[in-house]
Amino acid sequence: MSDHIYRVTEIVGSSGEGVDQAIRNAIDRASQTLRNLDWFEVVQVRGHIADGRIEHYQVGLKVGFRLDGEG
Amino acid sequence: MSDHIYRVTEIVGSSGEGVDQAIRNAIDRASQTLRNLDWFEVVQVRGHIADGRIEHYQVGLKVGFRLDGEG
Amino acid sequence: MSDHIYRVTEIVGSSGEGVDQAIRNAIDRASQTLRNLDWFEVVQVRGHIADGRIEHYQVGLKVGFRLDGEG
Amino acid sequence: MSDHIYRVTEIVGSSGEGVDQAIRNAIDRASQTLRNLDWFEVVQVRGHIADGRIEHYQVGLKVGFRLDGEG
Amino acid sequence: MSDHIYRVTEIVGSSGEGVDQAIRNAIDRASQTLRNLDWFEVVQVRGHIADGRIEHYQVGLKVGFRLDGEG
Amino acid sequence: MSDHIYRVTEIVGSSGEGVDQAIRNAIDRASQTLRNLDWFEVVQVRGHIADGRIEHYQVGLKVGFRLDGEG
Amino acid sequence: MSDHIYRVTEIVGSSGEGVDQAIRNAIDRASQTLRNLDWFEVVQVRGHIADGRIEHYQVGLKVGFRLDGEG
Amino acid sequence: MSDHIYRVTEIVGSSGEGVDQAIRNAIDRASQTLRNLDWFEVVQVRGHIADGRIEHYQVGLKVGFRLDGEG
Amino acid sequence: MSDHIYRVTEIVGSSGEGVDQAIRNAIDRASQTLRNLDWFEVVQVRGHIADGRIEHYQVGLKVGFRLDGEG
Amino acid sequence: MSDHIYRVTEIVGSSGEGVDQAIRNAIDRASQTLRNLDWFEVVQVRGHIADGRIEHYQVGLKVGFRLDGEG
Amino acid sequence: MSDHIYRVTEIVGSSGEGVDQAIRNAIDRASQTLRNLDWFEVVQVRGHIADGRIEHYQVGLKVGFRLDGEG
Amino acid sequence: MSDHIYRVTEIVGSSGEGVDQAIRNAIDRASQTLRNLDWFEVVQVRGHIADGRIEHYQVGLKVGFRLDGEG
Repeated sequence: MSDHIYRVTEIVGSSGEGVDQAIRNAIDRASQTLRNLDWFEVVQVRGHIADGRIEHYQVGLKVGFRLDGEG
Repeated sequence: MSDHIYRVTEIVGSSGEGVDQAIRNAIDRASQTLRNLDWFEVVQVRGHIADGRIEHYQVGLKVGFRLDGEG
Repeated sequence: MSDHIYRVTEIVGSSGEGVDQAIRNAIDRASQTLRNLDWFEVVQVRGHIADGRIEHYQVGLKVGFRLDGEG
Repeated sequence: MSDHIYRVTEIVGSSGEGVDQAIRNAIDRASQTLRNLDWFEVVQVRGHIADGRIEHYQVGLKVGFRLDGEG
Repeated sequence: MSDHIYRVTEIVGSSGEGVDQAIRNAIDRASQTLRNLDWFEVVQVRGHIADGRIEHYQVGLKVGFRLDGEG
Repeated sequence: MSDHIYRVTEIVGSSGEGVDQAIRNAIDRASQTLRNLDWFEVVQVRGHIADGRIEHYQVGLKVGFRLDGEG
Repeated sequence: MSDHIYRVTEIVGSSGEGVDQAIRNAIDRASQTLRNLDWFEVVQVRGHIADGRIEHYQVGLKVGFRLDGEG
Repeated sequence: MSDHIYRVTEIVGSSGEGVDQAIRNAIDRASQTLRNLDWFEVVQVRGHIADGRIEHYQVGLKVGFRLDGEG
Repeated sequence: MSDHIYRVTEIVGSSGEGVDQAIRNAIDRASQTLRNLDWFEVVQVRGHIADGRIEHYQVGLKVGFRLDGEG
Repeated sequence: MSDHIYRVTEIVGSSGEGVDQAIRNAIDRASQTLRNLDWFEVVQVRGHIADGRIEHYQVGLKVGFRLDGEG
Repeated sequence: MSDHIYRVTEIVGSSGEGVDQAIRNAIDRASQTLRNLDWFEVVQVRGHIADGRIEHYQVGLKVGFRLDGEG
Repeated sequence: MSDHIYRVTEIVGSSGEGVDQAIRNAIDRASQTLRNLDWFEVVQVRGHIADGRIEHYQVGLKVGFRLDGEG
């Protein structure tokens, strides 16, 4: 039971609002194709600027999901 | 006067709302037992996911507090 | 056309509200003196604490801007 | 012949016994779905504790596998 | 429109010629199976030596591709 | 319920046998004085050598424990 | 005489040809506005991809230049 | 005998004189409340500037001390 | 009042005497052209050797200065 | 007496059994040609996989040895 | 057979042409005095600038070679 | 002429006085057996504590020396 195996994938989410929303957008998209999402870790926060304003925030995430039930 | 000594401790705060609130929860809890809190630095942003949604954000902080008046 | 050259500068923005606002404050200030801002990357999130509460968040950013039109 | 291409994926294996067994569990599981596994690199060693004892060790691995025969 | 989501995968390309060609070989191979490749970042440059000469260069890359049109 | 707060402390355990036992020795000692230990992360593996043999392995750990019930 | 002071600035050069040319483009541009350039260090190699091909390589550099004669 | 357990704490010492004295100030203060101090490692050297002069140097240290005799 | 903005620049100071003096030389030089210097952080300590002796120490610093009054 | 000088060399040991044995194999080999070995630090844990199984573990070590008696 | 032991040494090669040639120069020189060279890893790319042009590229390498047949 | 090759070795010097003297002790010792020492870089500053006082400072250095005249 304690011998779970996880796979880790890296995604980048973006949002015009801020960091929290960019994380949520990334997780929402990942949950459409990956089952058993379990945790995330932020590995990078970047963004694009246009005309002196932040156009969107980009947050890089590592996302872990359990493989156990797939074998 | 310039020879302040600080101690640094590491805490992890969490929140269902987002990164800023997780930081505030961690500082609130630390201030219950540590006097003279002076600064913090974010060292990790993670979180847990359940049913494809973020259950809570977890933010790891280093927190510094002055030791001067304790000796 | 693909041979753009960027310069990267480092700034620290702060805000009493939170991380997103500290980033915006830094970009607003940078856009007063630098043209052609293109991207940013967060390199540090810190803050000051007074009386057990967060006084302000400080966010360190690398900011890139195009040099092409200046030559 | 020397122009091999590899893909690298990240997995987390766990075991109640120790670090070596957690690595083996991760490789065993990866070999069920990935062909041509070639090397691994440990990127993190963590674990969970319950009632003052180590419940299981968790080892994060990067695993490389050849893509050549797939194209 | 600004809320693009990217996935990041890691590949290792090799070449007997040099670093630039190893990067190109890796991107060529990745573009056979992944649509919408957008950027790469070099994370490691290694190589094998035989009889005192470089047999091939190996370059590890993170490669990002847009997920938007797949959902 | 999701707003747990953890404190993180760093310890170094040692053992003449190997890495796994050095981790267990460190956790055993920590559990004598700290309640609610929850997780550990290995941050360093070192050791001392005498007369050409490993005298003992030393493993540095970050150990997290919940603060919730203490307030 | 040995007490030289340097300033370090960060630039990003790009080229459709490869890494060496991107470095040269960055140094050429920097030498238009900065005197006494003395050394560089590569801090990042990235690039953009379009239609499955590398559109341009981007190389981030730290560039050092002497301040002595400017006082 | 070889199974010593250490705890590691982080402190920041400061001095108007220089780096060596800031380290000594930190160790002096730590030795008032911690027994069996065994080693230190410098993790950061910073400082404050006022009116164009260094007001004080700040040195962050990890400090290790044996727990054996405390159990 | 809490919304200060800083800019960070990187300089390298050198001295034949030692690390502390190299830091002071760098700050002295920076204060000739930059107002409102506030803090520094050491990012590298290097040096040159000639005839088996240290010719000079070189210390790389990040230096922060407030932008508020310039806008 | 406290002014010991050490030299540090880097070696990679391997073993089909596990991490601990790979460390021992590396130290055994190093002790054949280097006197006064004093400490080691693990800097990398990797391994090779063949037919879906771990063929051998490879552990990179920094090894320190005293130079005092050699002068 | 799987219990190979490697030693790792660090060298810096330079070239007026570019990165690939600087790597080759370093390996050529190392192969004059070291047998059984097996792999290299680039750890730093730097260079010197004179009169606004790159005088030479410098590439730092870790180079591994087998010790087995020497004992 | 620009194609110098360097080798890099790592040493640890110590001193009861402070960081600068520990660096000098390490370079003095290295210059007894290595010709053409050219530069050093500090990679670690540690020390031992006894009876609440610093017994000696230990400074880890990478030291580079030219190989050209040896071939």
